[in-house]
Order: sequence, then structure tokens, then C-alpha cells
Amino acid sequence: MAIVHVSITPIGTGSTSISPYVAACHTVLRAKEGLKWQLTPMGTIIEGELAEILAVIQEMHEVPFAHGARRVSTQIKIDDRRDKDATMQGKVEAVEEKL
Amino acid sequence: MAIVHVSITPIGTGSTSISPYVAACHTVLRAKEGLKWQLTPMGTIIEGELAEILAVIQEMHEVPFAHGARRVSTQIKIDDRRDKDATMQGKVEAVEEKL
Amino acid sequence: MAIVHVSITPIGTGSTSISPYVAACHTVLRAKEGLKWQLTPMGTIIEGELAEILAVIQEMHEVPFAHGARRVSTQIKIDDRRDKDATMQGKVEAVEEKL
Amino acid sequence: MAIVHVSITPIGTGSTSISPYVAACHTVLRAKEGLKWQLTPMGTIIEGELAEILAVIQEMHEVPFAHGARRVSTQIKIDDRRDKDATMQGKVEAVEEKL
Repeated sequence: MAIVHVSITPIGTGSTSISPYVAACHTVLRAKEGLKWQLTPMGTIIEGELAEILAVIQEMHEVPFAHGARRVSTQIKIDDRRDKDATMQGKVEAVEEKL
Repeated sequence: MAIVHVSITPIGTGSTSISPYVAACHTVLRAKEGLKWQLTPMGTIIEGELAEILAVIQEMHEVPFAHGARRVSTQIKIDDRRDKDATMQGKVEAVEEKL
Repeated sequence: MAIVHVSITPIGTGSTSISPYVAACHTVLRAKEGLKWQLTPMGTIIEGELAEILAVIQEMHEVPFAHGARRVSTQIKIDDRRDKDATMQGKVEAVEEKL
Repeated sequence: MAIVHVSITPIGTGSTSISPYVAACHTVLRAKEGLKWQLTPMGTIIEGELAEILAVIQEMHEVPFAHGARRVSTQIKIDDRRDKDATMQGKVEAVEEKL
């Protein structure tokens, strides 16, 4: 299981607002089964099997183009830990309990 | 006001766990006034005046060295919007209301 | 055609040096046909068909695990422009000619 | 000495081309003394004293606003190694000599 942060930004759309594109990307994400996700102010965090996550991100990356964008910048950060089962919730708790 | 995502990772410490370093960085962050922050499974999001945020990030970047790390990788993403007041909460709500 | 920046970092290996892992990842990348790449001091830039690039990055992401790492942090940034053919060389030239 | 990757992207300008903004940012960077830099197809890599680099990046981040942008996304990745003197050239050579 991996935890992946993704943000998808259309470039050159003429509007400083990108939330309509993010919402459309989330419609694709939320239709998938087997993945957990969390929407944050700076992107979306997805927990699940790495190949599945990357597949859905490729789909999400196409969404702004389908809505008229001609350039899309997509950033992905994979945190893949194989010595223990990492979860989104567990990562935050591990920090909080040390504070 | 800017919204900034930061993640600070020590490299080569010999342990796959980095939560002790993240907690120590947060002690520095949480002592500051005038900044809002949110801990996520993939980093920390800070809202406030850009110069203040970058100053505290520089302090946080020093924390793993003070705890024995000899190499630190710090990633920062600034979202700076000047046509309206953006907030962490407002960004998430703008997406949610379109779903 | 897309242009993609990738950096792959093992976490917790006990050594601050990661060049052996990067070299092993490059062995995988350089065996592929149809992709152009450029090694930089902060990662690798790959030019080609997006699905092919993401496929090779998934292979590269496995390399540090095969060499003993138990946690890997992989960062990917996709620049995908569909209104014109973008190339690594063209992007740099577009900036240089304006200086 | 640190090595820092930066990319600065205006959002919502109405043009998919961002090279004019990148060139304007580089004019600021290239006027500084004491910093080495390398322009890549996906950003700019700067080598030097960390506080100086972050100061110039803050200046560069203002450039697209001065040229009309109302939202700017700036990504920074710091590689800070204190067990040896790392350089941009040395990092690439360390990989190349293992291939």
C-alpha cells in the first residue's frame, strides 16, 4: 500500500480559479473503489495499491484537457513504505503522539 | 496571504520512520503566532504572510540537523493568489461545493 | 508528448549518498527505446509519450527496493502541453532567446 | 552550501506559454553574485548559501506579479547536505561514474 499526494493544475486557462477542474478530477477519483482519499487545501492524498493509484491519476490528469485546458501540470509524490503498513491516519497519529 | 505546503525529510538516518523529526519541526511551527497550519499525511500546510512562512520553514529545515541528520530534503510549494483572499478552508470548500 | 521530471529517493538507508540508487534507476531508464532523458543535479527529465514515461517510472521506483531500501519517496512532475509540440530543448531555448 | 530546484508558474494568465515569465525571473537571478545556477527544461537549479538562495527565490516569486499575473505557484526543493560539500556538477558526476 502506498500513500500518494497529487495536484493537477491547468496552465493558461485565463482564470485564477482552478476549483472547477479539481472538482471534476475528484468525480473521477470518487467513482473508484478500493482507494481512500483526502482532499486538502493543496492537493489530494490517496491511499491504496500503487498501480491503481497511478492509473486513476492518469485518468484525472486527462480531465482538465476534457474541460478545455491545453496545458496541464500534474505533481505526484509517492510515499511507499514496505517495512510496515502505512496509512494516512497512522502517519498523522505518529506525529501527533510525539507532540 | 499565501498558502504553503512543506515537507521536510532527513536522508540517510538509518530509520524509515521520520515522525520524530516531523514532530520536532512542528514544535517550532506551533510556537509561532500569526500562522495557521494543518498537518496532513504528506506534509504540513501553512497559511499566513509569505515572508513569515518562509522564515519559519527555514527554522524548521534546521531541526533535523539539530537532531543528528546530515542531509535534509525540504520541499515547499507556495500558492500565492492576489486577486482574492485565499484560505485553506476556502480552497477546500470551493471544491466541495462543486461536487 | 509530455515532459516529466522525476526524482527517486530511498529513505532510511543509513547513508546520505543516494547516487548508487540513482545510477541503478538510470540503467532501467536507459534501456528503454523511444524516450529522451536528461540527468540533472536534482533529478531526471524524460520526454516522450506520457503513458510510456509513467510505466518506466514505475519500474524505476522499484529499483531501490530491489537494492535493499524499505521506503522510497518518488516525486513526479508532468508538464503536458497539447497546443504545440513541446520538447526539453525547445523549452530551454524559449527562455534563453528572451534573455 | 545547498542545491535548490525552483520552478515558478503563473496561473490563469490566459496563455499556455510561460517562458516570458521564466526569462524575467532569470534576469533577477543572473544579477546576483555568489550563486551558481543551471536552467533546465523543468526549472532552475541554484547552488550556494541557503539563506541567499531563498532570498533570491522570494524576489523571483514576485516577478510574475509585477508582469500582471494574479496567482503564482512556486515550487522549491532544497537538497542540503552537511557531511560533505555537494555541488551540482559533483552530484551528476557521482551518478555518471556508476553507470
